[in-house]
Amino acid sequence: MATVKLIHYEDASPEVAAVYDDIKRTRNVPDVNNFWKTLAHNPALLKRTWEDLREVMAPGALDGLTKELIYIAVSVANGCEYCIHSHTANARAKGMTEEQYRELLAIIAMASQTNALANALQTPVDPKFNVEAG
Amino acid sequence: MATVKLIHYEDASPEVAAVYDDIKRTRNVPDVNNFWKTLAHNPALLKRTWEDLREVMAPGALDGLTKELIYIAVSVANGCEYCIHSHTANARAKGMTEEQYRELLAIIAMASQTNALANALQTPVDPKFNVEAG
Amino acid sequence: MATVKLIHYEDASPEVAAVYDDIKRTRNVPDVNNFWKTLAHNPALLKRTWEDLREVMAPGALDGLTKELIYIAVSVANGCEYCIHSHTANARAKGMTEEQYRELLAIIAMASQTNALANALQTPVDPKFNVEAG
Amino acid sequence: MATVKLIHYEDASPEVAAVYDDIKRTRNVPDVNNFWKTLAHNPALLKRTWEDLREVMAPGALDGLTKELIYIAVSVANGCEYCIHSHTANARAKGMTEEQYRELLAIIAMASQTNALANALQTPVDPKFNVEAG
Amino acid sequence: MATVKLIHYEDASPEVAAVYDDIKRTRNVPDVNNFWKTLAHNPALLKRTWEDLREVMAPGALDGLTKELIYIAVSVANGCEYCIHSHTANARAKGMTEEQYRELLAIIAMASQTNALANALQTPVDPKFNVEAG
Amino acid sequence: MATVKLIHYEDASPEVAAVYDDIKRTRNVPDVNNFWKTLAHNPALLKRTWEDLREVMAPGALDGLTKELIYIAVSVANGCEYCIHSHTANARAKGMTEEQYRELLAIIAMASQTNALANALQTPVDPKFNVEAG
Repeated sequence: MATVKLIHYEDASPEVAAVYDDIKRTRNVPDVNNFWKTLAHNPALLKRTWEDLREVMAPGALDGLTKELIYIAVSVANGCEYCIHSHTANARAKGMTEEQYRELLAIIAMASQTNALANALQTPVDPKFNVEAG
Repeated sequence: MATVKLIHYEDASPEVAAVYDDIKRTRNVPDVNNFWKTLAHNPALLKRTWEDLREVMAPGALDGLTKELIYIAVSVANGCEYCIHSHTANARAKGMTEEQYRELLAIIAMASQTNALANALQTPVDPKFNVEAG
Repeated sequence: MATVKLIHYEDASPEVAAVYDDIKRTRNVPDVNNFWKTLAHNPALLKRTWEDLREVMAPGALDGLTKELIYIAVSVANGCEYCIHSHTANARAKGMTEEQYRELLAIIAMASQTNALANALQTPVDPKFNVEAG
Repeated sequence: MATVKLIHYEDASPEVAAVYDDIKRTRNVPDVNNFWKTLAHNPALLKRTWEDLREVMAPGALDGLTKELIYIAVSVANGCEYCIHSHTANARAKGMTEEQYRELLAIIAMASQTNALANALQTPVDPKFNVEAG
Repeated sequence: MATVKLIHYEDASPEVAAVYDDIKRTRNVPDVNNFWKTLAHNPALLKRTWEDLREVMAPGALDGLTKELIYIAVSVANGCEYCIHSHTANARAKGMTEEQYRELLAIIAMASQTNALANALQTPVDPKFNVEAG
Repeated sequence: MATVKLIHYEDASPEVAAVYDDIKRTRNVPDVNNFWKTLAHNPALLKRTWEDLREVMAPGALDGLTKELIYIAVSVANGCEYCIHSHTANARAKGMTEEQYRELLAIIAMASQTNALANALQTPVDPKFNVEAG
C-alpha cells in the first residue's frame, strides 16, 4: 500500500510518459515497475533517478551482474523490501546462478555479523589502513 | 577506543594463538588485525568467526574480489567504520582498481537513494516478483 | 499482524480509556489509531508517549507541518512502515502540498545518498565544524 | 581517516577544479569541504552529486532552512557523523536558532522512539491510510 | 512473499532433511519455521546457522529467556519483521510475562531515543570509558 | 567533537543543575557524563530523558543488569558509539561478568546474521505467529 496513487501509463503526463517509454525501450519490457509509478509524482526526480540508474548500472569496470549483487546487498542492509525483490529479480534476469545467490546470502550474513561485532567492541581502526601515511 | 583491551599475540592463550597463527598463515601477514584482537575475549566466537569467514570469502561461484565489494557495500549500509576500512583495504589487496572503486561507490549511493524512495513511498511489490506463482 | 492483540476502546481499562479520550479530543477524531491500540498493553508507556508526543509536536519555534516533515524523514531512514504511513497522513492533514511532498522526497533521497558516500569514504570531519574552538 | 587521499584544489584535474570553483562561488567560501575532496576521486559522481544537491537544497516549496533540518534528521537516523556535522553547521549558517535546534532534537528523539515501538509491536497499518481507496 | 520457493520437508534433500529433523527434535515441534524453509536453498548455510543458533541460544551465563529478549531488541533495531515475530513467540514460549514484555518495549524505546540524541549531538565519549587506561 | 559546547556544572542554569544533582545523587558519582552535558542545551528534554531513563532502567520484572544488556544490544544495532561505551560500562558496574559479555556478543552477532538472512530472503511470517487467531 503506497503513500501515493500509482500513475499508470495511460494517466501519465507527456513528461512522465517519455521516461516510461525510455525505461520500456531500454529494458525491453511491456510496462514499467511500480517503483517508477510511485516516483512519477515528482517528474524531475523520476527523470533524474532513471537516468542516473541507467548510467550507474550499465556494465563498466564492473559487469552488470556484479552491480546487481552489490545493489541487493545494500538493499538488504537497509531493509528495503521492494528493492530486495526487484533487484533479486534483476540479478536473476542477468544470469545469477543459484550457487552465486547462495554465496551472496552467505557474504551478507557474514558481513552483518562482523559489522555488529566490530561495532559492539568498538574495535580501533588499524593504523596501517591510513592511506595518507607513507 | 575499544570496550575491551586488545589481546596481543604474546598474551594470547594457546587456543587464541592457534587461531592467530592460522590467520597469519592463510593471509601471509606478520600480525592479525585489531578486529581479531578484540574478538579474542570470546575464543569460541573468534574461532567460529574466522573459520566461517575464511570459508565464505574463498573464491567460489563468485570470485574473491567480488565478495569483498559486496562486503564493503553491507558495511557501508550498516555504518561500520572498522569494517569499511578493513574490507576496502582487502579489496585493494585483491586487485580492486580505482575505476572499480568509483563504480562501487556510485552503486552504493544509487541503491541508498532508491531504497529511501521506495521506503518513503511504500511502493507495493509487483506481483510478477512472486516466485511461487507460475 | 501485530505481536499483541489490539486493545479497542470498549475493552480498555479506565487508565487506557482516559488516554484514548484525550487523543480523540485533542485530534478531534472518532477513534485512535492502531499504534495506540497496540501500545496500550503498557499503560504507563502509552500515557508517557502520548503526552510527550503531544508536547513535542505542538507548534513552537518550528511550525506543526515542518515537524511532521522531519518525523517522516526519520521514519523513512529507520524503515518504519507504520510511521511512514501515519505521519505522511498527518502531514497532509496539516496542509502539506504535493509540491512540498515532492521536495521532501528529493531531500530524503539526496541525504541518503550523501550519507552513504561520506560513510563509504570515511570523510574526516572538517576542523572548522568544531564548536569548542575559538 | 578517509579511505582515499583528499584531493586538494591545487592537485585537482580541470574537471574537478571546475566543480570546486562552482561550489566556492555558489556558497561564497574560500575552500570546499572535505566531503568534496574525497568524492573527487570519481569526477562524474562529484559533478552529479553537487549539481543535484544544489538543485534539491535550493529554496522552493520548502525554504532552505527547513530543508537542512530534514537533512539533519535523515543523517542522524543513518548515523553519518560527517553529515551530521556539516548539515548542523549549514543549518546554523541559514539562521537556525537554538530554540529550533532544541525542537529538532526533541522530534528526532520522539520519532526514533515511536519507530522502535511500532516496529517492535508490528502495528498493522490503519486501513484509512489507503490512498487508493475511495 | 519470499525471493525463493519454500523447501518443505517432503521435498528436502537428505542433507536438508537431517537439519530439519534436528530442529524438530530439539524444539519438539511438528514442523520447522519458514525461516529454515527459505534458508534451505543453501544447505551449508542452513546447517551452520542452525548449529550456531542452537549453541548460542542455549542457557549459559545468561538464561534462555534473557537471550531471547536480547534477540528481539536487535531484531527491532534492524527492522526485521520475521525475526521480531519469531523471537517474540520464542520468548513467550520460554515464559516471558506480559510485565517483562512491557519493560522490554520501554527499554527498546528509551535506547532508540538516547541513541538518536547522542548521534545527533555527536557527544564525545568520556575518557573514563577507556579500558586501556590505568 | 560535539555539535554543541558541553555545559559543565559550574555553567549550568538552576534548572539544569537540579537535574545534574539528581543524577549525581542517584548514581553516586562526582560528575555527570558528557551525554547529559550535551543534552543540557534543551533543559526540558534533559529533565524528561533523565526521569524516563531512571524509571525505565530501575529493576522491575527485569533486573537492572538484564536491562543494560538489552540497552547495549539496541545501541550496537543502531551504531551509537557513545551509547555502546556508556552502557557497556554501566553493565560492568552492575556486575556483568566476562562470560555474560561473551554470550551477549555472540547473541548480537547471531541475531544480526539471521536478521540479514530473513530480510534477504523476505521469509514470509508463519501463520502460527498470529496472536489474533484462535
